[in-house]
Amino acid sequence: MTYVLTFHPPTANLKASLMDEVKCIFEPQSVVLIGSSMLREKVGMTSPKLFSDVVYNMKKFYCGKTNIVDVDEKKGSVNLDSLPRIPDLAVIMLPPDDSIVQAEKCARMGAKALIMITGGYKDHQRVRLLRLKEKHGVRILGPNTIMGVINTANGLNTTFERNTMPRKGNIAVVSQSGGVGACLLDWACFYGIGISKFAFVGDKIDVDDVDLLQHLGKDRSTNVICLYMEGVKNGREFINESRKIAEKKPILALKGGITQESAHRAKSHTASIAGSDQVFDAAFKKAGVIRVENIEDLMNGAVALSKQPPMRGDNVAIVSNVGGPAILAGDTVGRNGLKLAALSETARRKIENLYPGVDASNPIDTIADARADRFGEILELVLCDRNVDGVLVINMLKSTFFEPADARVIAKVAKKHPDKPVVDVPAGGEDFALVHKVLVDSSIPLYNLPDKAVKALKVLRDRYRILEKH
Amino acid sequence: MTYVLTFHPPTANLKASLMDEVKCIFEPQSVVLIGSSMLREKVGMTSPKLFSDVVYNMKKFYCGKTNIVDVDEKKGSVNLDSLPRIPDLAVIMLPPDDSIVQAEKCARMGAKALIMITGGYKDHQRVRLLRLKEKHGVRILGPNTIMGVINTANGLNTTFERNTMPRKGNIAVVSQSGGVGACLLDWACFYGIGISKFAFVGDKIDVDDVDLLQHLGKDRSTNVICLYMEGVKNGREFINESRKIAEKKPILALKGGITQESAHRAKSHTASIAGSDQVFDAAFKKAGVIRVENIEDLMNGAVALSKQPPMRGDNVAIVSNVGGPAILAGDTVGRNGLKLAALSETARRKIENLYPGVDASNPIDTIADARADRFGEILELVLCDRNVDGVLVINMLKSTFFEPADARVIAKVAKKHPDKPVVDVPAGGEDFALVHKVLVDSSIPLYNLPDKAVKALKVLRDRYRILEKH
Repeated sequence: MTYVLTFHPPTANLKASLMDEVKCIFEPQSVVLIGSSMLREKVGMTSPKLFSDVVYNMKKFYCGKTNIVDVDEKKGSVNLDSLPRIPDLAVIMLPPDDSIVQAEKCARMGAKALIMITGGYKDHQRVRLLRLKEKHGVRILGPNTIMGVINTANGLNTTFERNTMPRKGNIAVVSQSGGVGACLLDWACFYGIGISKFAFVGDKIDVDDVDLLQHLGKDRSTNVICLYMEGVKNGREFINESRKIAEKKPILALKGGITQESAHRAKSHTASIAGSDQVFDAAFKKAGVIRVENIEDLMNGAVALSKQPPMRGDNVAIVSNVGGPAILAGDTVGRNGLKLAALSETARRKIENLYPGVDASNPIDTIADARADRFGEILELVLCDRNVDGVLVINMLKSTFFEPADARVIAKVAKKHPDKPVVDVPAGGEDFALVHKVLVDSSIPLYNLPDKAVKALKVLRDRYRILEKH
Repeated sequence: MTYVLTFHPPTANLKASLMDEVKCIFEPQSVVLIGSSMLREKVGMTSPKLFSDVVYNMKKFYCGKTNIVDVDEKKGSVNLDSLPRIPDLAVIMLPPDDSIVQAEKCARMGAKALIMITGGYKDHQRVRLLRLKEKHGVRILGPNTIMGVINTANGLNTTFERNTMPRKGNIAVVSQSGGVGACLLDWACFYGIGISKFAFVGDKIDVDDVDLLQHLGKDRSTNVICLYMEGVKNGREFINESRKIAEKKPILALKGGITQESAHRAKSHTASIAGSDQVFDAAFKKAGVIRVENIEDLMNGAVALSKQPPMRGDNVAIVSNVGGPAILAGDTVGRNGLKLAALSETARRKIENLYPGVDASNPIDTIADARADRFGEILELVLCDRNVDGVLVINMLKSTFFEPADARVIAKVAKKHPDKPVVDVPAGGEDFALVHKVLVDSSIPLYNLPDKAVKALKVLRDRYRILEKH
């Protein structure tokens, strides 16, 4: 059976249909991986080792069948023509010309989507590839995606990194750069950040940010969308689509290539034209996209958005068992256009009556001997205060009496106030790691330094403002 | 034998003598710890547990004798009056009034320095304590130092945190806040940062930043000085002393309490008056002190200064095995007032001849399959280029062929060019941790994201400008 679709100007129906094909990139019923156990290609990134690594990862796909086609026909490899079923998705990692030959075969057979791993394509090769979409309706991710996609929900992983499956979660990441994507993936795995999908878009000859946004906008396992982009082909479409999605789901973007010199580099990097930075800034604002400055802010903001509600006002309360870090947090609150909440007289009196010695002017000093009980009661009183829109908790272990397990109380109390964001800072290196172990599965975003937590609250505030506009 | 010194306006000799006493805070020949195995004091931070923790740490002091005086006279405790030798340094952790009684005893006996751990002092108690300096010439660190001091060279550690001795190195840290100090200490231990001395100054009734700067300026094991400060008592003296020291050793400062609201908090926190932020900014500039924005920048800048030379010009070369992160690094270079170096034609041609396919326009793409050899040869050519003042290397593992041990080549090549700084970015979470294990003992500063490495280069550039002025 061959699935044929002649190409004509997209109508609503066709677009919807083509979107079903995009879905196959992440949720195929059957997959074929086509590569070589012999070929080595430097620039484009294929090698026997890489092929075997992708094989290793793709065999873990558990919601359908994975077939492996080794064009050098080693043991265990199947023949593309004798597959029992037409694959929804073909993942192809061969040098460009060989890849195109295989892509043509798959498209003719009726595959709905192609992930083109390898890079190093020349323009005429890109054109040849794109023709397959026109002729067969197949959707193409790449070429030059290098790492392809990950879907934590069904175990699909086309990367060549072993043991880098992030934990399941609701954050989707779309990266134009293999390197930045790999860094985000490594970061997510290392810090236990919950991911729904990862997509490395590469040269974007067909499937682009807009297609992926459309898909992720509808994707029920995705609540937050992170973009790393160096350029965009159709700005207007990107803005329109983002605006629509941003009504329901937050979108964060990190833009690479903002200076003239690195923009030049971006151009040669993924064959995209890096627009002027101001244009992007304006576009992101219009699109309801929250722009961040670096990789860490992107992940930190995404974690905040995935776990906590938008912040309805500017007023931040700081509850801390140490003085200096609370002051630094207060400084950053000001720098980010937020305010230190002026606690109500009632709240202050209640806290100070309950714990003589505690200074209940914001930042609120719980004193270094505070354990779960005191933290919990003070946090509860602060969250009940109408003058407070969000809370930044600092619970260091070093120099205090606080124990990692005490941190559980923060999640418990925060849960009772689902309308106000709470973020936590077990400041430091080991202190962060110890509390992280306790709270990684909770709804509380964790940051290793106060200023990062404030920036995360700022993202939650930005998110509220975007929703207000709609 | 009682050591008496009447107080009169300081002359040069007396000042020098009093500085010898400051030295005893870090390098005593004999120490006595005075505390209680029974007393519990909430605000001031004493408890049987804390006392036993400090005992545990102080027994590891290996360059002299440590005596433990338990005022509740438990087994193993000695009597202060029957000490075989007058202690150079007394560390006292009792509630304020009890602490003062013990401090008076020690001062009368001839102790040269006191570290007053406990907080919660009222003004009249501070006055009583200060009188001991006037009467006996004893120098006082604190009160309210909470953690006291650490000297990695002789094992002296008066903190109550077990197993938090940082590795030996040449960075000294002076923190006005116990919390920020504890966070810096935790950070240093966790990331293997080499420390010479740590001092928690607390309320600064006597020994202050200026005294400590004077001491650390002369300290042969200290090459870099980090300050966290919320206020300063004698601005002019601080500026003069810093200027003098900055000729020889870099000083980095993080100032807490910059906004009006958090400044209010700072005031109640360590009884210091937080000056206007602009005044501090001007003072730091005048003093040759490099100001940083947060805890991570403080540590990152210090590591750069402790391992690499100042940067003689603005021109940064980026050598990277991934594209996107190099572009992000390039963006940050521009944001920090540095420039992407324009490589000389010779260097470019050499690199491109050696490795066809490598794009030698800056950022220089080594291509993802680069291993130690290629990295080393390209780094060597780039460092030889007179158009280059410093190099930022990015060597990710994920999505590339690079192995952690390959990173050794960076230290090897950098060593041949001691006049140009080289910093390294194994970007990510696990990637950073793996390369960190390989290079932590080397002369190469490591950063987990490109923008942090650029900021470190900026600190090295600032340092050069300060030296130029002198």
